[in-house]
Amino acid sequence: MAAQEDNLFKNVISHAKEYGFIFPSSEIYDGLSAVYDYGQNGAELKNNIKEYWWKFMTLLHENIVGIDAAIFMHPTTWKASGHVDAFSDPMLDNKDSKKRYRADVLIEDAIAKMEEKIKKEVEKAANRFGESFDKEKFVTTNPRTLEYQQKIDDTNARLKAATSNADMAAMKQIIIDLDIADPVSGTKNWTDVRQFNLMFSTEMGSVADDANKIYLRPETAQGIFVNFLNVQKTGRMKIPFGIAQIGKAFRNEIVARQFIFRMREFEQMEMQFFIKPGEEMKWYEYWKEKRMRWHQTLGLGAENYRFHDHLNLAHYANAACDIQFNFPIGFKELEGIHSRTDFDLKNHEKYSGKKLQYFDSEENQSYIPYVVETSVGLDRMFLSVLSKTYTEEKLEDGSERVVLRIPAPLAPHKVAILPLVKKDGLPEKAMEIMNELKFDLRCFYEEKDAIGKRYRRQDAIGTPYCVTVDHQTLEDNTVTIRDRDTMKQERVKISDVKAQLIEACSINNLLRKI
Amino acid sequence: MAAQEDNLFKNVISHAKEYGFIFPSSEIYDGLSAVYDYGQNGAELKNNIKEYWWKFMTLLHENIVGIDAAIFMHPTTWKASGHVDAFSDPMLDNKDSKKRYRADVLIEDAIAKMEEKIKKEVEKAANRFGESFDKEKFVTTNPRTLEYQQKIDDTNARLKAATSNADMAAMKQIIIDLDIADPVSGTKNWTDVRQFNLMFSTEMGSVADDANKIYLRPETAQGIFVNFLNVQKTGRMKIPFGIAQIGKAFRNEIVARQFIFRMREFEQMEMQFFIKPGEEMKWYEYWKEKRMRWHQTLGLGAENYRFHDHLNLAHYANAACDIQFNFPIGFKELEGIHSRTDFDLKNHEKYSGKKLQYFDSEENQSYIPYVVETSVGLDRMFLSVLSKTYTEEKLEDGSERVVLRIPAPLAPHKVAILPLVKKDGLPEKAMEIMNELKFDLRCFYEEKDAIGKRYRRQDAIGTPYCVTVDHQTLEDNTVTIRDRDTMKQERVKISDVKAQLIEACSINNLLRKI
Repeated sequence: MAAQEDNLFKNVISHAKEYGFIFPSSEIYDGLSAVYDYGQNGAELKNNIKEYWWKFMTLLHENIVGIDAAIFMHPTTWKASGHVDAFSDPMLDNKDSKKRYRADVLIEDAIAKMEEKIKKEVEKAANRFGESFDKEKFVTTNPRTLEYQQKIDDTNARLKAATSNADMAAMKQIIIDLDIADPVSGTKNWTDVRQFNLMFSTEMGSVADDANKIYLRPETAQGIFVNFLNVQKTGRMKIPFGIAQIGKAFRNEIVARQFIFRMREFEQMEMQFFIKPGEEMKWYEYWKEKRMRWHQTLGLGAENYRFHDHLNLAHYANAACDIQFNFPIGFKELEGIHSRTDFDLKNHEKYSGKKLQYFDSEENQSYIPYVVETSVGLDRMFLSVLSKTYTEEKLEDGSERVVLRIPAPLAPHKVAILPLVKKDGLPEKAMEIMNELKFDLRCFYEEKDAIGKRYRRQDAIGTPYCVTVDHQTLEDNTVTIRDRDTMKQERVKISDVKAQLIEACSINNLLRKI
Repeated sequence: MAAQEDNLFKNVISHAKEYGFIFPSSEIYDGLSAVYDYGQNGAELKNNIKEYWWKFMTLLHENIVGIDAAIFMHPTTWKASGHVDAFSDPMLDNKDSKKRYRADVLIEDAIAKMEEKIKKEVEKAANRFGESFDKEKFVTTNPRTLEYQQKIDDTNARLKAATSNADMAAMKQIIIDLDIADPVSGTKNWTDVRQFNLMFSTEMGSVADDANKIYLRPETAQGIFVNFLNVQKTGRMKIPFGIAQIGKAFRNEIVARQFIFRMREFEQMEMQFFIKPGEEMKWYEYWKEKRMRWHQTLGLGAENYRFHDHLNLAHYANAACDIQFNFPIGFKELEGIHSRTDFDLKNHEKYSGKKLQYFDSEENQSYIPYVVETSVGLDRMFLSVLSKTYTEEKLEDGSERVVLRIPAPLAPHKVAILPLVKKDGLPEKAMEIMNELKFDLRCFYEEKDAIGKRYRRQDAIGTPYCVTVDHQTLEDNTVTIRDRDTMKQERVKISDVKAQLIEACSINNLLRKI
């Protein structure tokens, strides 16, 4: 990460806390690792993102309905989905420091160190040889760099094999062969490598001898799959149709970091689209295009999104890609689009013994539908909006401001109502206007401090419009509307304010543009 | 529960499943006890209830803001709140059946049996003596009923004492003295009575020797308390002010039953109002009145709500009451209103070592605020709407219908768009109207089956209006709007439909009436 982006990310994180968007969880108890709370402005922004997604999915597609399944599910669900057996990381402990590490991360760190050594050799040589230095040639002929490079290639190949075969002994052998020491204790006194499941578990019920181990769902998708026939039958749905859901999921990530990008408790917005087998590539392409358009309609810049095809497909998929966003930490996954085939429904049939088939009256036959999934990380979406709209600006008068250019329909508050001074009946007039607007627009009322200072505070929380009530207001029933981005003010009749602001701030209008 | 209400409740439960409101969780795996999923119609109704609450709290009170704190919190939170030590039920196991029971429930069941015996003696005597029978006199003079009654009174007194002193040995002694046998094994081979905590726990992180036990929050309130200063400072809030939150909470209930009334995973809508110490009774009365009005504005019948004062106050409260609703299972708690004093903030200060004081600039002094809490069970609110609007009706023509008279602003769909027949261009015209309405109103489109059958289906999911497109529509651009409750139809210009339906269905309009 370049220093500039690094700084930007730090500034976004501290702004998010200072202005009530994101607080570390249980901060008075020094926080809880990789868990965050949404503050008063964050909660509104998050709700607006949800609404934008939910309405797009369920209001604008008459063949998609939404559900809200519980976080707790029957534990067999996670056997059928493969999570009990395969949703794990390879871990080992150092017996001296008692610290636990991800084996693959230790190995990757060792590879990175070797790459660093090659880089240093190259730099040394470049300094020695000056302009005549041929880097390519040096790397492929110098015995020392050659040796490193061979070791790197060899290690990468062994790591890949050990990972895909889930061969924990082979993983351990790489660590021994590379002579990797614990960064804390400095010793090589390692336990064996074992699989560590990422699901959180708990026990339900109270029967003494039969404690019932259940899991916190690691994804919301399975809540849709187990309800597939319930929804299809009670909703009289015909294929193709979709089921949408927004909800929490939990993963006991070992390396949880990067602010809200990877959290142990997070929220997903998922839609599973049920289709006729054989039509999956058509619908996969259809949803790729639709979802990309949904993102780009927000106006954060089309160039900040790109597709990234998965080369290594998950066990359940026959085609998969990410929509990546240009975060301060680089282009990273924002949404996944996966052709999941009939993997999940077939396994739920097998484990439950219940038929999960759809009767296609046009084809006059029953089949297990195929599924194309679209899955957005809600917290990542939040981070994409916050980080891309955060702007530090130098103004004409030499002063500076920080402004969040959040798209108006997503902004926590739509309008701030500001009496110019705290007397002469201006606060009363301002409240009168607020009482007219507040049912349809989230308003912020503030009367303290100079007007310029109040504008800055609204800029910092992304409020797109400020309505200022001044002495002229009392005479001619007009106010000024200040635009957050241009900082220009225009004089408007009070009777026109509501319609004008609703037009500019409505999520429904944004949806019309998709 | 009288047989009639019992039947009603059963019908509501089966209707909720048949029409996509509530499904048992993981039903294909035979369900998970006391956990339910919201289906395609339930999810919308639930979302609308949330919106009605959230907007009332945060849009209509400029001194209340909303947050969204994580389910995971630092474990010390629950020491400070008292949940680690005191949030438990007295339990004991039968060593033969290995079954676990709540000690107080076993005792209450034994009391109920004695009451049953008195009743039988009375009935026998009444049959013997005929009309001259004086029940009062019989009960107080007959040696056998007298003995039972004394035992009942004595047991009640001992149970109350054992409960309030958390005296587990005394609880066990009652069970021994009453000679209570396990209904499963029939033996009296009991373990000691122990406290069983109702919080779900799990382990976070992966440090081998230091597994970090955390809890799923049993209430959302503490997420507000630990963030109190963060919100106050970053939001520049002045007392009195409130923090609102909607979110999941979890309790490992031993006796979880009564459909969605008492679930192990449930959702709360809570608001904590921070005030100056000494003003709590004023605000307690204020919020009692406000919250009652919010409920009654829904139009389910003012007579179905009542206040119920708590006689035994929780350890944190100096005044508390419920708003009870007339459920099919009787008047039960729907919302709690509690004057929590400074109990929570004071304890978080103590356990965290951080000051949690508010500086009151008017008083020029710092203090820990007092708190008045309003806390609605979202799932109970859902059940109140569903059960009270469920109606079985005999129509004039002798046929029957089931209709959910859900208040239009809360209904899952606002309008069904129905072409009278599936030809002559009517479906196309209907889709045209739908495309005009669908951004602002949740629409249901259906073209299959006779129109009467389609009306019935919309009645059953509570859709307040049906717009029918017929041949006249093609001539004069009018449609009929059918009212769910009166079943009357009126002819309306297409251009007027949208405004008329928005007016009738908007949550904002409902809020204006409070």
